[in-house]
Amino acid sequence: MALEIVSESQCFGGKQLVFQHSSDVLGCDMKTSVFVPRHGEESKMPVVWFLSGLTSTHENAPTKSGFQRVAAELGLIVVCPDTSPRGDHVPDDEAWDFGQGAGFYLDATEEPWSRNFNMESYVARELPCLVGDHFPADMARQAIIGHSMGGHGALTIALKNPDRFKSVSAFSPIVSPMNCPWGEKALAGYLGDARSDWAAHDACALVASAASQFDDILIDQGTADNFLEGQLKPELFQEACAAAGQKLSLRMQEGYDHSYNFIATFIEDHLRFHAARL
Amino acid sequence: MALEIVSESQCFGGKQLVFQHSSDVLGCDMKTSVFVPRHGEESKMPVVWFLSGLTSTHENAPTKSGFQRVAAELGLIVVCPDTSPRGDHVPDDEAWDFGQGAGFYLDATEEPWSRNFNMESYVARELPCLVGDHFPADMARQAIIGHSMGGHGALTIALKNPDRFKSVSAFSPIVSPMNCPWGEKALAGYLGDARSDWAAHDACALVASAASQFDDILIDQGTADNFLEGQLKPELFQEACAAAGQKLSLRMQEGYDHSYNFIATFIEDHLRFHAARL
Repeated sequence: MALEIVSESQCFGGKQLVFQHSSDVLGCDMKTSVFVPRHGEESKMPVVWFLSGLTSTHENAPTKSGFQRVAAELGLIVVCPDTSPRGDHVPDDEAWDFGQGAGFYLDATEEPWSRNFNMESYVARELPCLVGDHFPADMARQAIIGHSMGGHGALTIALKNPDRFKSVSAFSPIVSPMNCPWGEKALAGYLGDARSDWAAHDACALVASAASQFDDILIDQGTADNFLEGQLKPELFQEACAAAGQKLSLRMQEGYDHSYNFIATFIEDHLRFHAARL
Repeated sequence: MALEIVSESQCFGGKQLVFQHSSDVLGCDMKTSVFVPRHGEESKMPVVWFLSGLTSTHENAPTKSGFQRVAAELGLIVVCPDTSPRGDHVPDDEAWDFGQGAGFYLDATEEPWSRNFNMESYVARELPCLVGDHFPADMARQAIIGHSMGGHGALTIALKNPDRFKSVSAFSPIVSPMNCPWGEKALAGYLGDARSDWAAHDACALVASAASQFDDILIDQGTADNFLEGQLKPELFQEACAAAGQKLSLRMQEGYDHSYNFIATFIEDHLRFHAARL
């Protein structure tokens, strides 16, 4: 598969790139950000995926989280995909929390979404092939981080692909889309009304159905986050992990909100958590 | 003077704020970003000003440069003003490099700009009063940083107010607006065609007319900056400083461009440079 580099900017000695490619599974052109630390000719580096939240694009994390400093130090490639298929021919919705910008990292089965809204296949299969082919990436060493809707994506994709990911962490994730308004709207819209089809996209349900797959899962959650009680409900994941014997390090961070100011503060901890496992 | 806090978000243990106020010298409402590190009840902290470049607002540096981590560690308040007066009643120009977003940190004398375009008075006098009144700021300890057009602002305002600033630094600054297309357009537009009126807003001319005022001036300039040869010309400032006996640490940073990826890489060096002098 071919890709085109659309921008390249030096940052902490490495390169912050944006590439564009034609996605088969999404049926549209997509842009993805990649940070590649400075490296020797022969060396391949581990890959950390960062999945963003509602309304975000491939640009939010590279611009606002400041991950490059620590990724450069630790020698981690960081890949930031977009949050949905894009384009005038791609279905959309007037709401900010459904349609473009809100792909929820699943493969839709309902019309008119099923042709394009296949972000799970995109992140779990198509994009890794591209990254492995075009960057000095050691695809045997991958980890995944997500924020909010992207936290949901990181947890579910990691739990379904434990062989691929050495570790997983999240900032203020949607841990149970079956049990919050954002998730119920998205799952019903993309998958239909049969709730039995939803469990495969619910981190709480997934962790309950599997033996412990990771030595630890790191979640940071701000206590001043406006979405904490109504949407995020980390206690549900805490209960599910406890019941399943999955170790969870849930850190309630006093006074922090849902923004990138929160992510920027703790991204170093997450990258070091992953580097120790890669 | 009254101000209204329009947003507040915790970041690295401190607060990233945006306040709004009615500016007398600019004749409009203005927004300013301020980072206030965590502090004890009694302590006042030194203040670092960050002046942004063309098309930027008060939001660019706090969102993209990642300065908060080091400012929190060093106990520095960082104030990021907007780059021009704002509002539907404020004159503007179709060009991206003149009018709103392009105030050039001077007091305009030409119509229709002179009522509102007084960014020098705003940054040098009105805003410091507000900051000193409403934040735990030790106004006897101030430093100033700027980027591009803001680098011009930082250098000129510091050179004209050496009693107020303990130190000054810049990223890819416009060092001689009298000798580059951006500067000639702005100076002619805001000040009129008499070049004799321009020298008071030209860092090279200012440093030539004064004895050494700072123990050192730090400038970082990327060698892959598209504006290096046509607009920025750091060698002019190097020559002016050498002639005036002003020590200058001009660092040509190989491969870096004009973006915030460059600033984010070296902002820590600048904050430590200033903290050592505050």
